[in-house]
Amino acid sequence: MINLTALRADTPTCETLAHFNNAGASLMPNPVYAAMTDHQALEQAVGGYEAQADAAPAIADFYAAFADMLNCDPFEIAFMESATKAWDAVFYSLPLVAGDRVLVHRSTYSSNYLALLQLARRKGLGIDFVPSDAHGQIDLESLPGLLTGRTKLILLTHCPSQSGLIQPAEAVGRFAKDYGLLYLLDACQSAGQMPLDVQAIGCDALTGTGRKFLRGPRGTGFLYMRRDLADRIEPTMVDLQSAEWLAQDRYILADGARRFEAWERNVAGQIALGQAVRYALDIGLDVIAGRVQPMAAELREALAAVPDVTVHDPGQQRSAIVTFSKQGVNPADAKRILRDQQINVSIVPRNWALLDAEERDLPDLIRASLHAYNSEDEITRLVSAVAGLS
Amino acid sequence: MINLTALRADTPTCETLAHFNNAGASLMPNPVYAAMTDHQALEQAVGGYEAQADAAPAIADFYAAFADMLNCDPFEIAFMESATKAWDAVFYSLPLVAGDRVLVHRSTYSSNYLALLQLARRKGLGIDFVPSDAHGQIDLESLPGLLTGRTKLILLTHCPSQSGLIQPAEAVGRFAKDYGLLYLLDACQSAGQMPLDVQAIGCDALTGTGRKFLRGPRGTGFLYMRRDLADRIEPTMVDLQSAEWLAQDRYILADGARRFEAWERNVAGQIALGQAVRYALDIGLDVIAGRVQPMAAELREALAAVPDVTVHDPGQQRSAIVTFSKQGVNPADAKRILRDQQINVSIVPRNWALLDAEERDLPDLIRASLHAYNSEDEITRLVSAVAGLS
Repeated sequence: MINLTALRADTPTCETLAHFNNAGASLMPNPVYAAMTDHQALEQAVGGYEAQADAAPAIADFYAAFADMLNCDPFEIAFMESATKAWDAVFYSLPLVAGDRVLVHRSTYSSNYLALLQLARRKGLGIDFVPSDAHGQIDLESLPGLLTGRTKLILLTHCPSQSGLIQPAEAVGRFAKDYGLLYLLDACQSAGQMPLDVQAIGCDALTGTGRKFLRGPRGTGFLYMRRDLADRIEPTMVDLQSAEWLAQDRYILADGARRFEAWERNVAGQIALGQAVRYALDIGLDVIAGRVQPMAAELREALAAVPDVTVHDPGQQRSAIVTFSKQGVNPADAKRILRDQQINVSIVPRNWALLDAEERDLPDLIRASLHAYNSEDEITRLVSAVAGLS
Repeated sequence: MINLTALRADTPTCETLAHFNNAGASLMPNPVYAAMTDHQALEQAVGGYEAQADAAPAIADFYAAFADMLNCDPFEIAFMESATKAWDAVFYSLPLVAGDRVLVHRSTYSSNYLALLQLARRKGLGIDFVPSDAHGQIDLESLPGLLTGRTKLILLTHCPSQSGLIQPAEAVGRFAKDYGLLYLLDACQSAGQMPLDVQAIGCDALTGTGRKFLRGPRGTGFLYMRRDLADRIEPTMVDLQSAEWLAQDRYILADGARRFEAWERNVAGQIALGQAVRYALDIGLDVIAGRVQPMAAELREALAAVPDVTVHDPGQQRSAIVTFSKQGVNPADAKRILRDQQINVSIVPRNWALLDAEERDLPDLIRASLHAYNSEDEITRLVSAVAGLS
């Protein structure tokens, strides 16, 4: 059972601001914000590297906290600067060669798709699109028929940024395992809003950000990579953290996911993100999912009842992200007008989700993404404000 | 003329702490620290993306400030997560092919050298070492004799992390121009402690960090790349910031240095780093250099007079970095003992500067790196504390 009073007390801004941009960047709870600012104050008091040395236990807990959350080993976790940096660190490093083929769904995150286009052209890879099923999610039944002798990899965005869809990540994991494919899961929008068990999912690597549903700081991200995969992959770039310098012509890569890390980092951000994971685990990710999913469903229903509003979320199971449009209303204008009423939403321009937008014939969208600390009252405010848009 | 009282008032920690680890991470002046924490507070008050939109002028000034400092166009500047990320973004993207040769000096920064080893093996590049002259700096006279028909690139670390050397960056620029070589300058330790004019230097790209002599936050860095070079280089990785998605099989790269940037970033860090550049420019980088260089020279002289101490800095012109060792004293112990006396120094293990250490037959070093806010009294304290080490 969620303690909404405590959650909201930890999020003072929500006294006045209805923040429905948690899929963009959430508000940090007080303990997470304090972990960040306390470390920054320590850096000012004793020096940056000196503070890092003093904070060794908190930094170590970053890895332990993610290992607890994801059900893996701390050595399988790396701190990254963003979800995209984490994704790219894995994706561009994979041992793919000309002629290899990659499976992808049209809902994949834009930056991941851009990276795929670039690497496909650079290496001569083939791209195969997995069609959508009747629910708009990846069509599991079509998967075996898409395999060729050269299919090596499947990419999945767990919860697309541009819709409320939750992809069936575990079923894709079973398929990947059955057919010996590498499987990368982008959990940028799912981490922090639902339980994620990498053993149950069966992915080889999983990436995410700090600032969204995990409620950590900006400029932070994380990477999980299965130990035996990490130990046989050469990162695209190396430095003093990812490798040890042995001789004029020789270095040795660090073990585990650390070989994808950088020496220099936003230490306060790393510590705060570890704290954010602990905060989410203390509430319980199942408890969070159990609150945000019904609340998002309620919001969809209420919005759909507003004249001229269309809700656009596909999926059999749906996330805390709600996307909609209102006839005659420009989403950018809507965002501005709502912000003047102390309601934050975001917009999804068509060309940030191009393939998905084409397939579903979407306009630019308004996105309202809620978190466990959002209240029923705020939802009422949002729906009423949307009704007032013209 | 430096206003030491004002500088120290902006750096409250220096009332008690003698911070000689500015080459590791400096202490932020109050206005820079406030720029960072104010933006973080704004993010908490209005939301992360909303704060970013509200802070557009401060973010724009990041590019303008660096353009002012480096004498270039704002479009030639990118915000990066660290100096190494900036270096790698350029270095790994260069259009080098098998058989091309790279000139490098043994004092080059470890992570840059590791990247060179990796890329050389991946692409089949040749590495040619430029010998040191009598001053221990890159031997300019030997350069023409090292050229082959396949020499394409010269890499230089302006101020090595492990010594007080300042490399003759402008003379190398003239050589690079005369012979049509690409020239990358790592200004990680020079940015903020001396004037840097990319037109005078003649480099194609220059990279640096926020946290060292610029006195900005951790987890920040910057990249300068000459516009006409940036516009013809494909970055190793692309995302929503560096490219625009046009169609299922097509994207277009952003113009200028922005194609090396990432969409997600530590916005508070970026704003604070812009502020740090303004702070340094307000003092004057020539004024800063005019203070730290004689002060470092004085420190070297005083340390050299301490029994059993050897100062190890080569170079005709020397930076704010002072490196030394004391017979019978383990540098790691020295660092700990000095820290107990409220004096911060750092250490340079041999294998962080392997080629330089081999050439100069160095032990692990103690490094004292000073900034303009350090005082004569602090130097006296440091020298006296070193004299007491046994």
